[in-house]
Amino acid sequence: MSQQFAFNLFATDGAARVGEISTAHGTVRTPAFMPVGTQAAIKGVHPQTVRAGGADIILGNTYHLMLRPGAERIAALGGLHTFMNWPSPILTDSGGFQVMSLAQLRTLDESGATFRSHIDGALVALSPERAIEIQNLLGADIVMQLDECLRLPATREEIERAMRLSLRWAERCKRAFEGAAPGRALFGIVQGGDDAALRVESARALVGIGFPGYAIGGLAVGEPQAVMLKIVEETAPALPADKPRYLMGVGTPEDLIEAVARGIDMFDCVMPTRNGRHGLAFTRYGAINLRNARHAADPRPLDEQSPCEAARTYSRAYLHHLTRANEMLGQMLLSEINLAYYQELMAGMRAAIRARRFEQFRAVIRETWKYGDIPPLTA
Amino acid sequence: MSQQFAFNLFATDGAARVGEISTAHGTVRTPAFMPVGTQAAIKGVHPQTVRAGGADIILGNTYHLMLRPGAERIAALGGLHTFMNWPSPILTDSGGFQVMSLAQLRTLDESGATFRSHIDGALVALSPERAIEIQNLLGADIVMQLDECLRLPATREEIERAMRLSLRWAERCKRAFEGAAPGRALFGIVQGGDDAALRVESARALVGIGFPGYAIGGLAVGEPQAVMLKIVEETAPALPADKPRYLMGVGTPEDLIEAVARGIDMFDCVMPTRNGRHGLAFTRYGAINLRNARHAADPRPLDEQSPCEAARTYSRAYLHHLTRANEMLGQMLLSEINLAYYQELMAGMRAAIRARRFEQFRAVIRETWKYGDIPPLTA
Repeated sequence: MSQQFAFNLFATDGAARVGEISTAHGTVRTPAFMPVGTQAAIKGVHPQTVRAGGADIILGNTYHLMLRPGAERIAALGGLHTFMNWPSPILTDSGGFQVMSLAQLRTLDESGATFRSHIDGALVALSPERAIEIQNLLGADIVMQLDECLRLPATREEIERAMRLSLRWAERCKRAFEGAAPGRALFGIVQGGDDAALRVESARALVGIGFPGYAIGGLAVGEPQAVMLKIVEETAPALPADKPRYLMGVGTPEDLIEAVARGIDMFDCVMPTRNGRHGLAFTRYGAINLRNARHAADPRPLDEQSPCEAARTYSRAYLHHLTRANEMLGQMLLSEINLAYYQELMAGMRAAIRARRFEQFRAVIRETWKYGDIPPLTA
Repeated sequence: MSQQFAFNLFATDGAARVGEISTAHGTVRTPAFMPVGTQAAIKGVHPQTVRAGGADIILGNTYHLMLRPGAERIAALGGLHTFMNWPSPILTDSGGFQVMSLAQLRTLDESGATFRSHIDGALVALSPERAIEIQNLLGADIVMQLDECLRLPATREEIERAMRLSLRWAERCKRAFEGAAPGRALFGIVQGGDDAALRVESARALVGIGFPGYAIGGLAVGEPQAVMLKIVEETAPALPADKPRYLMGVGTPEDLIEAVARGIDMFDCVMPTRNGRHGLAFTRYGAINLRNARHAADPRPLDEQSPCEAARTYSRAYLHHLTRANEMLGQMLLSEINLAYYQELMAGMRAAIRARRFEQFRAVIRETWKYGDIPPLTA
């Protein structure tokens, strides 16, 4: 396809922005939420249902796919879009985050990371160049640079070292990505932990290198929400207004609204599906824990005005039963319902920003959206 | 709904029959395969997908539903059809089979069975009258008498005792079912183990009591296929030609064809979904074990001429990957594909019987349908 990669801003309301990203596989309305398809599948939801729920783009995990079934295998089978029957845009991460969180016996130096696969213990090397090569083999529309992710808290020295290493890797990734087909783009990733000065330095250096989009990485890794939002608030203005901004691995509905209020355009998170698998529904009214006995005899659907048919159709009593009985259908329905709610929330934000009513929208959600019985599982 | 319960035979070819059962919730084309919705859900498949795959009727398990969420609860929520969003016909078993196979500390006497729930250890009583009451509360279109199921092999004395007890329970169930709404029917169940004379005696006694349909129970419980088919062959002629005949808990595609050849009209089995969850696909070519490494790079779909979109769309390599990676989507797709294959097989049998070509159809399936890498998990 010959569509060029582009980002068009349609409107702003305060720092909040509404726009559209064009890619080789179609357009992405922003602010956008990307369901996570870790192993070339959104857990428990057919790709057609993910799309019908309102998703324009999904995320694939380089770390998982390189280990199984392998990037060369997926390329031979026509690329990730064909492999998983998702003809719309795909963003792949670089693998850096999972190397930190999942891999064993990790060693890391200037050249990249080496680690043992969590699946079979095989020794694997991931350099910036290999991260790009893998994502090119997968055929992702949006490719992420390899970066070093730290868990927080970490010392300033550690944070600064990882941030500078990530910048050097950003340059190598940019060189490795040169010559990519039109309609595809490489994003740089801002690091710098919870240190605002380092974040701004990282952002400016990345802008100096020059990317068609920028991510803020290394957040939602254990720090309080207030810290995360403060870093977003200080980092976003250091990024160019005419490029998309992606906050990686975030978050709760509240996180999304607060980050959009600070100028973020893209998100990914496992929360809707992971929580759905554990019996937690996200709805316009807040989070509802369907394991709770108070739903056992409740004939009402989760939300009779939802655009999602499953949320309008099945009773809370039935979803309670499925959850208690550990039926796969319960996990499927709640994952579908939660993804649709997230997309409904994004659509609501987009409409509110266009109408210059984002503050009112934010206030309404703050007022009406309750965590209910239990806090959701985090990212 | 005012539709009367009825069975209409359209054509026969040898002992094989094609017809239609009318019930309060719609019609069932026979020979019919009933997907099993044990806990008010077909495992891993949306009800709309089950229906779109060709199922006219599904089976619900009285034993499971009485324990969780409870028959009175389901009745208060509008009955099983409403509860699980399946507006088409439902048959419920009586619970007898699961009392034998799942319950703990079972005791059994003339009055019925008492046992401890496998879920929470609660002491539960199931009499013939309670089995009917539960199925009435669920609102099943086809209700099964309570019977005593034995595992085979068993002594002739044991088999005869259980058969006679089941006959006495049949009379009690018939009395308990009197006055049921139109469009609903109670089936008697032939018992008698692997003893043809006892089977025929049981069948004749049930016909003497008089039911709108008859099941052959207590098979597919460990005996060889040849024994099962011999019992079917000797029992079916003892049942009235103008009533539907249901072979409970059967079976493989080959079992279904061979039983239809002997005059059976209805089947239920967990094989398509259970095997799908374990990576085994049923297709026109036979059973395909997608865990096998030979599928890892195979871009072909399972069957590009299947009426099931998933069977035409996803590559064997992708299904292999999902199965190896333990992704829920793999279990979902293979369950859907297998159910659709079973329905395609039933539709093929119905067309062949109408065309008086059942023997040719049976020969073609025998020739082309291979078990492939591994035998399927049994019922």
